[in-house]
Amino acid sequence: MRKEKGLLIVLSGPSGVGKGTVRKAIFSDPNVDFEYSISMTTRQPREGEVDGVDYFFKTREQFEQLIKEGKLLEYAEYLGNYYGTPLDYVKETLEAGKDIFLEIEVQGAKQVREKIPDGLFIFLAPPSLSELYNRIVNRGTEDDERIRGRMEKARKEIEMMDLYDYVVENDEVEKACERIKAIVIAEHCRRERVQHHYKKMLEVE
Amino acid sequence: MRKEKGLLIVLSGPSGVGKGTVRKAIFSDPNVDFEYSISMTTRQPREGEVDGVDYFFKTREQFEQLIKEGKLLEYAEYLGNYYGTPLDYVKETLEAGKDIFLEIEVQGAKQVREKIPDGLFIFLAPPSLSELYNRIVNRGTEDDERIRGRMEKARKEIEMMDLYDYVVENDEVEKACERIKAIVIAEHCRRERVQHHYKKMLEVE
Repeated sequence: MRKEKGLLIVLSGPSGVGKGTVRKAIFSDPNVDFEYSISMTTRQPREGEVDGVDYFFKTREQFEQLIKEGKLLEYAEYLGNYYGTPLDYVKETLEAGKDIFLEIEVQGAKQVREKIPDGLFIFLAPPSLSELYNRIVNRGTEDDERIRGRMEKARKEIEMMDLYDYVVENDEVEKACERIKAIVIAEHCRRERVQHHYKKMLEVE
Repeated sequence: MRKEKGLLIVLSGPSGVGKGTVRKAIFSDPNVDFEYSISMTTRQPREGEVDGVDYFFKTREQFEQLIKEGKLLEYAEYLGNYYGTPLDYVKETLEAGKDIFLEIEVQGAKQVREKIPDGLFIFLAPPSLSELYNRIVNRGTEDDERIRGRMEKARKEIEMMDLYDYVVENDEVEKACERIKAIVIAEHCRRERVQHHYKKMLEVE
């Protein structure tokens, strides 16, 4: 069946959850047929990093010019450096009917959700949330004080999930990858998407 | 993470699309961890069919008694025989936190949708729909008269999709199985499902 516009796939989650590791594992699979959107940054390349592969490295002036021109789908500043997603590549890939994959911070994901609400937003959840859950359920031998401290962190992480379509627990990188790939396959089978396509066929007639 | 109620998975589609073949292929995978809901019927067992494996074979009197007692989740009559889904097994499996898989006719799927609206409904689509689409798009050498006849059938099949969550094309049995398994994995990662679970954890505290 002929594809129409591609799917925008956004992987995000709390910092330290392992987004980069999961993303690299996904793209190490030769069967994955979505494009990776390389981020832009003003930070210095680290040893071994290649411009146009790991990041597009830009000066602060260049980056701020792109912001001014509206050329970024999302951006944020961390530790004095800018990070962002170039808009044109995302647009062109989607228009060409290919899926595109973004691995970005939660602040950036929020910006993208506002601009492209029909994207596919996946939240990578820390396994500590489940561990915490199991401890609470099997409590008795547990130190209530310590749990309480962790609950506050959990509460914030669970609230972050609000704007996402899916939540994938990063208990094991391989499992998380499989779930993300399954979500993309499933999303292409969603009735609204497929039926709409068939309905257009009837109109063509 | 602890599972709550299981997921009701309904596979249906136009007659002759290959539902039974796809269902058997799914359950030939030892990693599939959902239960198959064996249908009940009043038709005679065919050679090699085993009661309680292929079907639960019942007399007409027994079946009509079960209808009267509300013991069937759905049922329909075809060619003078009843076919139906026993309600208790479905309920017990879901309550035990296991997913259950039904392979039924479209009329039955409609009944189930009314009773269990939050089930997962998958429509198996005939590849003839896509073929037709490609022919229309690449028309020129095509016989318009023949296409018109097939359009009417397609129109009905596309309308049938209305009550389903997903549409899976049965272009190849293996591919259709992979998509269905991916849909089940994805569905377990849907935010509403997962976040709700975490939120309950916060309430427990």
